[in-house]
Amino acid sequence: MKKIITIGRECGSGGHTIALKVAEKLGIPCYDKEIISIVADKCMVSKEYAAKAGELICGGFYSSYYGSGEITFPYSSPSLQDQINATQVDVINSLAENSACVIVGRGADYILRNRTDVLNVFIQASMEYKIMLSKEKHDLTNKEAKTILQKRDKERSKHYYFYTGQTWGDAKNYHLVLDSGVLGEDTCVDIIVDAFHKS
Amino acid sequence: MKKIITIGRECGSGGHTIALKVAEKLGIPCYDKEIISIVADKCMVSKEYAAKAGELICGGFYSSYYGSGEITFPYSSPSLQDQINATQVDVINSLAENSACVIVGRGADYILRNRTDVLNVFIQASMEYKIMLSKEKHDLTNKEAKTILQKRDKERSKHYYFYTGQTWGDAKNYHLVLDSGVLGEDTCVDIIVDAFHKS
Repeated sequence: MKKIITIGRECGSGGHTIALKVAEKLGIPCYDKEIISIVADKCMVSKEYAAKAGELICGGFYSSYYGSGEITFPYSSPSLQDQINATQVDVINSLAENSACVIVGRGADYILRNRTDVLNVFIQASMEYKIMLSKEKHDLTNKEAKTILQKRDKERSKHYYFYTGQTWGDAKNYHLVLDSGVLGEDTCVDIIVDAFHKS
Repeated sequence: MKKIITIGRECGSGGHTIALKVAEKLGIPCYDKEIISIVADKCMVSKEYAAKAGELICGGFYSSYYGSGEITFPYSSPSLQDQINATQVDVINSLAENSACVIVGRGADYILRNRTDVLNVFIQASMEYKIMLSKEKHDLTNKEAKTILQKRDKERSKHYYFYTGQTWGDAKNYHLVLDSGVLGEDTCVDIIVDAFHKS
């Protein structure tokens, strides 16, 4: 019997919307941006920085994103990202401990790897589909959308590898991998809910 | 609207049984060993050789498996495996053209890549689950089962890479990847049937 669903997702695949719909159908909370807020508060950094540090590898932008995002941090802090990630691990473990929920991204599949009540899902799609979805949503050209999508996923992938030693999106790390472009968002939702109930 | 389902599967994951049940539920044929028989007849090789050549890379056993399996072929034929694979491609294309069906393994996802009516599925499971399933079925020790499973999947993987240039089991090549150990065989069947109807 599963209690938690983690949903990793390629940028532009509609994974966030799918996660929200799954949580709504199951009547349980969905944690995505909420994790960022808690981590930002605990670490006293801006939400923008917590968002980036929790899913991307932060190279040279410690200073500009530190604090409120307006304070210029006087020196590079190599441990700040680690601190944020350690806090994120604690927050995700607490959320999973507290109640049934859906957790989006942030390597939650890896963080919760020792629990047996977690269903790990990954949402992917073809680049054509992701471009179509993103350009509609953010008013971008094909080229702009492709560049942003590729950059974001590359960063997520680097972060995931750095903190887990595993390959992001590798089928081996998930119980269910779905192509949202071919299956459609609502079918993905139905499949995840079905798998959650039956596994 | 999909017409064909291809099911790749790790050895010992129960993928073959899942494929049979999916086909039964949908009332369509399931092609697995049947492909081997057709290819063997067309190429005038034994079923054993057609089975191996169609999914594994045949190193030094051209002679022993050629023909009925009893004839010693007098010289190594580097093109025999290619000939069998080319025939297999033709057979799979014909089957897909003829009617709705489920096709197991044999790189059918790649062979049918230019069709838009194909749902590509991959069944995987943890080594523990696959060992459990295999040792029950074939009366093996844990060690024997693990060795056989790893060897067979390594061979399938090499064959798939050789003929497709893609990585076998890579989520990117499939629309649906399912962990049969966690989800259970019947849930996998339900999910595939649901995805087939709705995509």
